[in-house]
Amino acid sequence: MAAGTLLYAQSGGVTAVINATASAVVAEARARKVKVLAARNGILGALREELVDTSKESAAAIRALAHTPGGAFGTCRYKLKSLEDDRARYERLLDVLRAHDVRYFLYNGGNDSADTAHKVSQLAREFDYPLTCIGVPKTVDNDLAVTDCCPGFGSAAKYTAISVREAALDVAAMAETSTKVFVYEAMGRHAGWLAAAAGLAGEGGDQAPHLILFPERTYDEADFLARVEKTVARVGHCVVVASEGIRTADGRFVADAGGGKDSFGHTQLGGVASHLAGRVKDALGMKVHWTLPDYLQRSARHIASQTDLDHALAVGKAAVRFALDGRNATMPVIVRTSDAPYRWKIEPAPLEKIANREKTMPAAFIRRDGYGITAKARAYLEPLIRGEAYPPYGKDGLPRYVTLRNEVLRQRLEPWKG
Amino acid sequence: MAAGTLLYAQSGGVTAVINATASAVVAEARARKVKVLAARNGILGALREELVDTSKESAAAIRALAHTPGGAFGTCRYKLKSLEDDRARYERLLDVLRAHDVRYFLYNGGNDSADTAHKVSQLAREFDYPLTCIGVPKTVDNDLAVTDCCPGFGSAAKYTAISVREAALDVAAMAETSTKVFVYEAMGRHAGWLAAAAGLAGEGGDQAPHLILFPERTYDEADFLARVEKTVARVGHCVVVASEGIRTADGRFVADAGGGKDSFGHTQLGGVASHLAGRVKDALGMKVHWTLPDYLQRSARHIASQTDLDHALAVGKAAVRFALDGRNATMPVIVRTSDAPYRWKIEPAPLEKIANREKTMPAAFIRRDGYGITAKARAYLEPLIRGEAYPPYGKDGLPRYVTLRNEVLRQRLEPWKG
Repeated sequence: MAAGTLLYAQSGGVTAVINATASAVVAEARARKVKVLAARNGILGALREELVDTSKESAAAIRALAHTPGGAFGTCRYKLKSLEDDRARYERLLDVLRAHDVRYFLYNGGNDSADTAHKVSQLAREFDYPLTCIGVPKTVDNDLAVTDCCPGFGSAAKYTAISVREAALDVAAMAETSTKVFVYEAMGRHAGWLAAAAGLAGEGGDQAPHLILFPERTYDEADFLARVEKTVARVGHCVVVASEGIRTADGRFVADAGGGKDSFGHTQLGGVASHLAGRVKDALGMKVHWTLPDYLQRSARHIASQTDLDHALAVGKAAVRFALDGRNATMPVIVRTSDAPYRWKIEPAPLEKIANREKTMPAAFIRRDGYGITAKARAYLEPLIRGEAYPPYGKDGLPRYVTLRNEVLRQRLEPWKG
Repeated sequence: MAAGTLLYAQSGGVTAVINATASAVVAEARARKVKVLAARNGILGALREELVDTSKESAAAIRALAHTPGGAFGTCRYKLKSLEDDRARYERLLDVLRAHDVRYFLYNGGNDSADTAHKVSQLAREFDYPLTCIGVPKTVDNDLAVTDCCPGFGSAAKYTAISVREAALDVAAMAETSTKVFVYEAMGRHAGWLAAAAGLAGEGGDQAPHLILFPERTYDEADFLARVEKTVARVGHCVVVASEGIRTADGRFVADAGGGKDSFGHTQLGGVASHLAGRVKDALGMKVHWTLPDYLQRSARHIASQTDLDHALAVGKAAVRFALDGRNATMPVIVRTSDAPYRWKIEPAPLEKIANREKTMPAAFIRRDGYGITAKARAYLEPLIRGEAYPPYGKDGLPRYVTLRNEVLRQRLEPWKG
């Protein structure tokens, strides 16, 4: 048995393949005789000393994690601030790590988590506690700096491209007498990567999607409605993909529309697709349908991308390797060495170059008119959705997803008063 | 070549497998040397004499139809009324059929289409025109009378059960600090079949979905909110599946909420999931997410049910057989002969028993408390989602769906002034 213990924690929104990374972390650590604890509900579990003993999970359960969506140990939205502002919390975290002889801390998340892992590594050094901190990339938003792409994105991108291709066939069939305009709302926060992936559904020209609204471009309602009208006149229908993060010229998020009263007298929630659909209906008088896939797009393990799964497993394995090699305050990132044939490798990158940064779509990926993707974007995106990594199914027609035992270790410290 | 020509038309909302039925119709007719025309955009194309010559489509294209969602020839929402009210339209239809020597009319749709096919058969008899009319079943709503189930439903049901299982894992992982309640809006019009299919995602008890709202039961907001609150207290989160057709005690559709003004000053659209989510947020103060899969659920050919595909192909083949056998005014329906093992066969049923009727969920399929499904419902539903009928994929990671040439025949009649 190698010295010390490894603590793995999941952070923020889950993806179709974050558990695949967890699976690779546990399998690789087991192979190297390192004990693995997992924080219950992310960093909160670490602060509360709610640590899952992964040795209680069977090898079959750990393997099954690789095809199970969600976050198997639980995750959380809980951002630690600066070392000055949140010093008590960071020190508590270090106390918990010390109490369980944790020498390797792997934090699986986005740029917030990279920041936290980085700060924990700084504090450990300050206290002379021997700890290697590794950030492990994950986000469907694909907005992490340095890495070529983020595990989780490829599968959500594949789901998006397929769903838009399928719904577009539906709309095309119905448009003569029914729905003329269809609006699909994609996740992605301030980055248009997932909306861009919808562009793969067609091959340009008059193939759907006809209009993509990127958060990297200002949303201009009059221009948008004019384009919808023209598209319907030319094609017979119009498929729109809108990123949840689009904003008007005065900086307001379109998603913040809503908040009025509905006809039952209650507050009504907003949403980009619902708003755009309402505008198309009112201003153009066209029949419109819209979809808000929401969590479905990031948990759709049933149609995960094989490339994405390969990445998710590879960063998990590399994270353990980097940890044991003492590559403190780094993240295993994906480096693309060739587009065609698609080739990639994993390399360590310093967390400080990733923490709190956000990578949006480069201008060269957005068509000049602002409503579509370029050939460069296609060359980047296409390899990421390649291959169908289907989960196993039961005779009942449903995917066999695993639920872990998640047995929490007896606590060694006083309860946290957080 | 057998005498006469067969006209096939698609009607109403499309499904993941209606093109599979079309594929079987064309293949079976070709095998029997019968010429097949297809109406462009459903019955409208028949009235307008826009008839696709399917002999121009390659055998490969017809085979590919079996794995292509949408409606390959186009469909429409266009309901012919009674023979008295719409006599001119029915007579025009007969003129078109006569002009192209059509002796077999196959109308692929729901209960409206069964009604139209039935009326066309009556008019043909009145005019002594030798025509065999066959209704071919299709609807994701599963609300057709007589048949055990409807092609299209099984695939939408599978999509629903899988999507709810996946999203539930997402919510469970996030609930500690983020989303506590998730609402999924299912199609189904006045019937709760698709919402019920979501029940397959869990095995009862505290497994998601925790609450299903059926249109067959009155929506009681106070009772619903109390149950959401209790579920969150007990489980930590709550997954709700709501049918689009639920109504309050005074008969109002919850989907009709909306219509107020949003914060941008524009009309806001409604929706069941958005309304319920708003109520949960306001009344319980809980973080809530919701999804409106809309067309995605009925076009998700990427995760079609093998049972459903088998049904869709079988009714297409049987429809041609029944047509050539002169079984006028019938529909090939699915008869279940055994639950376990699941066994079924196709039989002809009279259209008049199917036309304009709507089959909702039997009381024995809804749990006594009104918020879940019974063992009987599971025994009925489960065989329908069995098997994964994946489409072929390209190297680009996307399903290879076919687009037909859809060459329209030269018109023989004066243009329709409809």
